[in-house]
Amino acid sequence: MQLTTVEIVKPADANVIVGQAHFIKTVEDVYEAIVQAVPGIKFGIAFCEASGPCLIRHSGTDAELEKMSITAASAIGAGHVFVVILGNAFPINVLNQIKSVSEVCNVFCATANKLRLIVAEEGGARGVIGVIDGDSPKGVEDADAQAERRAMLRKFGYKQ
Amino acid sequence: MQLTTVEIVKPADANVIVGQAHFIKTVEDVYEAIVQAVPGIKFGIAFCEASGPCLIRHSGTDAELEKMSITAASAIGAGHVFVVILGNAFPINVLNQIKSVSEVCNVFCATANKLRLIVAEEGGARGVIGVIDGDSPKGVEDADAQAERRAMLRKFGYKQ
Amino acid sequence: MQLTTVEIVKPADANVIVGQAHFIKTVEDVYEAIVQAVPGIKFGIAFCEASGPCLIRHSGTDAELEKMSITAASAIGAGHVFVVILGNAFPINVLNQIKSVSEVCNVFCATANKLRLIVAEEGGARGVIGVIDGDSPKGVEDADAQAERRAMLRKFGYKQ
Amino acid sequence: MQLTTVEIVKPADANVIVGQAHFIKTVEDVYEAIVQAVPGIKFGIAFCEASGPCLIRHSGTDAELEKMSITAASAIGAGHVFVVILGNAFPINVLNQIKSVSEVCNVFCATANKLRLIVAEEGGARGVIGVIDGDSPKGVEDADAQAERRAMLRKFGYKQ
Amino acid sequence: MQLTTVEIVKPADANVIVGQAHFIKTVEDVYEAIVQAVPGIKFGIAFCEASGPCLIRHSGTDAELEKMSITAASAIGAGHVFVVILGNAFPINVLNQIKSVSEVCNVFCATANKLRLIVAEEGGARGVIGVIDGDSPKGVEDADAQAERRAMLRKFGYKQ
Amino acid sequence: MQLTTVEIVKPADANVIVGQAHFIKTVEDVYEAIVQAVPGIKFGIAFCEASGPCLIRHSGTDAELEKMSITAASAIGAGHVFVVILGNAFPINVLNQIKSVSEVCNVFCATANKLRLIVAEEGGARGVIGVIDGDSPKGVEDADAQAERRAMLRKFGYKQ
Repeated sequence: MQLTTVEIVKPADANVIVGQAHFIKTVEDVYEAIVQAVPGIKFGIAFCEASGPCLIRHSGTDAELEKMSITAASAIGAGHVFVVILGNAFPINVLNQIKSVSEVCNVFCATANKLRLIVAEEGGARGVIGVIDGDSPKGVEDADAQAERRAMLRKFGYKQ
Repeated sequence: MQLTTVEIVKPADANVIVGQAHFIKTVEDVYEAIVQAVPGIKFGIAFCEASGPCLIRHSGTDAELEKMSITAASAIGAGHVFVVILGNAFPINVLNQIKSVSEVCNVFCATANKLRLIVAEEGGARGVIGVIDGDSPKGVEDADAQAERRAMLRKFGYKQ
Repeated sequence: MQLTTVEIVKPADANVIVGQAHFIKTVEDVYEAIVQAVPGIKFGIAFCEASGPCLIRHSGTDAELEKMSITAASAIGAGHVFVVILGNAFPINVLNQIKSVSEVCNVFCATANKLRLIVAEEGGARGVIGVIDGDSPKGVEDADAQAERRAMLRKFGYKQ
Repeated sequence: MQLTTVEIVKPADANVIVGQAHFIKTVEDVYEAIVQAVPGIKFGIAFCEASGPCLIRHSGTDAELEKMSITAASAIGAGHVFVVILGNAFPINVLNQIKSVSEVCNVFCATANKLRLIVAEEGGARGVIGVIDGDSPKGVEDADAQAERRAMLRKFGYKQ
Repeated sequence: MQLTTVEIVKPADANVIVGQAHFIKTVEDVYEAIVQAVPGIKFGIAFCEASGPCLIRHSGTDAELEKMSITAASAIGAGHVFVVILGNAFPINVLNQIKSVSEVCNVFCATANKLRLIVAEEGGARGVIGVIDGDSPKGVEDADAQAERRAMLRKFGYKQ
Repeated sequence: MQLTTVEIVKPADANVIVGQAHFIKTVEDVYEAIVQAVPGIKFGIAFCEASGPCLIRHSGTDAELEKMSITAASAIGAGHVFVVILGNAFPINVLNQIKSVSEVCNVFCATANKLRLIVAEEGGARGVIGVIDGDSPKGVEDADAQAERRAMLRKFGYKQ
């Protein structure tokens, strides 16, 4: 078994969600979950079918993001893995909906950071075993940084 | 630390769900969640207790599937991991219910494909780090394959 | 890429929950989810910010447990990972609430056992790829052990 | 405003679920939620569209049950109300899935008992205000009846 | 059909949750959901069986609260209605867990206020159609009252 | 006890969600749930505090909609009832999030139709017992209307 890292190619500020699912129905169900989450949402989804024709199944509301999600899924190349790339929305707008889809087993990450997936390969088949999501910590939040964090969430309107 | 792969032994068309949980109450709670999901459902569940007697705890509604789930859990041998093997039902019938069980941390996979678990071992203890679920993709879905996918889901009655 | 194991330092009977999330809003949302789960709950939470200042963000209701969660998050050092250490409560009291937080992708483990996280490192950045949670199984539950398990859950009042 | 009761016509052992929802997408979403809950499930669903053409929208996997659900929805005649009639399955197999549908506001009842809906009417429009589900209590469970209840749930396999 | 109001008898500061469910399994499932929500929680639950023996089924961890919940359920006397009375805990500790129980259709209220249930009766059978929960509003929150509300939630530790 | 109907004043195409909750923390929690559902969402929320000062507590991201929600809550005047009025979004974007808020008991309706709430009053206190949401059905969907319904959902992009 070999381990490699796969870096996801995406616009710097686009958010990516990668997860493990079951069955090609995933594509249509995740599509529906995302479309109804946010009016006018732009995204692409690709899913690695893992038996029979073994095609990368895909959908979305934006051709460019759909193509990017296919490219990412191809680079990962692991059975039953799906990739969602979001345009004008954020993971918190869609993540609980995706987690609730009946075929979704788990979600590896949701991030706009530089993202590397750690992929295991054996006998030509592959699996995601983890992610390296952005950078490692450089220090511990002190009282000032804590105040800034809380202020920022309130400035964004997320908290009151 | 050593990494190995463990292939799950199961009938070709049986579906397997593997996850990480907490506490031996998992067995009874997952049992209840599955039993009430589908009338007359056949399944087995095994869970690796990770402290004290460290027994493989198990339950189910079908002796054969229960035995298979014990065999799979033994081969994995990782603390707090559970294995569900389904007979006359599919992961989409039970997966959200399993994800909602209070002891369940995550689900690594849900699949009828050839399934290999990637297991790390250190000092005699083990942990699942990922899965290789079926085969890697061989191409990208084109318009015809997309139409076939949608038609198939509608033939199965899942979509309208 | 290098793999190492990180052992979590904690009181022998304290429970730890480790997961992957998204965005520093995680700290405040997980704090709120836990505080409202159990009256008077004691816990600490730390989260590895993965961009910008890359600080370990933290909160809690108990200074000691909050400090421990910071130490654990520092030792793990992986972007968007969070650590919750519980005092006077159990994972089943808070786990579904944590899984439902909009930023939470997945939960790697929930345990009071000796806990080692398997961490991958590449180019100075890190990611959790799995856990070794307690010990490996030493046998299979027989009828007597099964009766004891069920009796214990009923003695604790969890089942009737 | 006038209050009337509407008795649901159904086979004595069929279960009925009645709820309040939003938007004609309800029909297709509840259909999908139920179909994927139980393999081979037989049911009908009808929904009272409350604007525009104001048609009773309907679907299902069994023509007879679908017809019955239309009859029940017609008798109720209240905007955005839906009726599900189940054949070979039970409310516990589908109720959480129905409650999770994005258009569903609430569920008034789930029962195989004689069922009367209390309907308010004003200016030709109607709304469900409650249900009379089966009979009123005739006494309080004593220790023997409690033991019988627990034994029955275990005989059915729901509990262990 | 006659409408009456039933006032729930309870200690002034005890919280009551009343809902509509399905099937006597409700008692054991709601019991389990509450017990695992909060360590050492004190509560009683009663449920109006609506067919066959039509007994008020009950359970709990505190004899006094269990008795009170039976008294409340008797006074309501409506098929498939359940009453939970909490001692040392609050509705926010248990409400989502109760809403997630597979037999629970809806929850009418969760309150420590003076509580009156509005009950419809026809032909000897009854149904809850609504609640009068505490008092009606006396004014609109101004900026000062808003600041006090936010401060109070922060003093309780619910918000940061 | 008297029953009256209260018509909600709102722009013809605005959606209204009315529900029963618990505790003034509802305002801030529903606010947070909605804000994070859709980027830039415009809405108002008002909640009838039912003890102590009994104020209509309110929040939102749009002054006009917030004022409308206060007016609606005042007209209803029932303890622990909340009203959400949405601007640039739809109930399906926020309804599951609202249903998941820990203080929310149930949701009476979600609609852009003409909406009348049926309110019971006794001794100066009030409770919502139901809704009249839009118009009653005028017929049953035939094959053509069914095809139009499916086509419309696909034109909107909700289904494929």
